[in-house]
Formats: sequence, structure tokens, C-alpha cells
Amino acid sequence: MAEEHTIFVGDKPFMNYVTGVVMQFTTQGSDEVVIKARGKFISRAVDIAEVSRKKFLEGQIDLRNIEIDSKQFQNKEGKDVTVSTIEITLKKI
Amino acid sequence: MAEEHTIFVGDKPFMNYVTGVVMQFTTQGSDEVVIKARGKFISRAVDIAEVSRKKFLEGQIDLRNIEIDSKQFQNKEGKDVTVSTIEITLKKI
Repeated sequence: MAEEHTIFVGDKPFMNYVTGVVMQFTTQGSDEVVIKARGKFISRAVDIAEVSRKKFLEGQIDLRNIEIDSKQFQNKEGKDVTVSTIEITLKKI
Repeated sequence: MAEEHTIFVGDKPFMNYVTGVVMQFTTQGSDEVVIKARGKFISRAVDIAEVSRKKFLEGQIDLRNIEIDSKQFQNKEGKDVTVSTIEITLKKI
């Protein structure tokens, strides 16, 4: 059974997230890892997926699925804001 | 037969790209439009797809496919650089 492990991308150092993905697949033994991001962090999520897949775990993991969406929420001033989201699922080969 | 029309995302005003997508589907009568971006413009490509799909052409177009990849090239200083890419394909419903 595939377990879902999720990495939320924010503004921590880039390699924190890559290490997070690698650890999930190696020491945690996950079959799948989901990288989630929104807004400006979407580009970063793609970088993290690509570096994990092509450099650190080359030949061991691959893309399984990519979804994009957008969500509405209220910001601190009570104004409706729409933000785009991405979910990149990586799987063990 | 589906024709492929491509929008390359850069640093022009946001609405230029949304208008580009909308025009392809309406006045140009395309069945599919591909939004391509790399690096920091990836987040923008997702925003453009989402605004086109949920605001301007709601109920008329939907996501068909999303691909991410990364490419190596030499920058102006002759140094190898890797950049992530995205291709979002929208289709007429």
C-alpha cells in the first residue's frame, strides 16, 4: 500500500526540502512523496522535484502525477485573494 | 486534428498572457493551447492557466496535461546552468 508523505515548500533553504524528499524515500522507506506549494513557491517546488529526481535519486524515483489548482481565501485585511497551487507526486521506481 | 498553439511566459504584463490564451481559444479557434515557462516564470505560468480556466473561459476549457522537466545550458559566462521547465496544456471542453 502506498503511503503519502508530504513536503510543504516555503522559504527555508532550498536544500532542506531536497533533503526532506530524499530522506522520505531512503530512511523513511516511502513509496511516494508529495511536494506541495502555492504562489511564488511553485517554481521552487518544481526545482526541488527535478533536483531530487535527476541528481540525488537518479534512476530511483520518477514523476507520478502533477496537479495544479487555485484556492480563494481571505487575507489579513479581510480581502478575497486567489492563489495558485501545485502538487507534484514522486514515486519510487 | 488538434493544433498546438504555444504561449511562452516571460516578464510582460500578466494579462498579456491571459489574453493570449483566451484569443487562441476564441478568435483563433484552437482546440489546445500550451503554456510554457522556465525558472521563476513557472509560478506565473500556473497563474495564467488558472485564471484562463477559472475566470475567463470557465466551463469552456480544462487542463489536459502538465509536464515538468529541467534543461542544462551554458550561461553568458560559459558556466553550466540547470533550469526547470513546465508545459501546461489546456484543451477546449
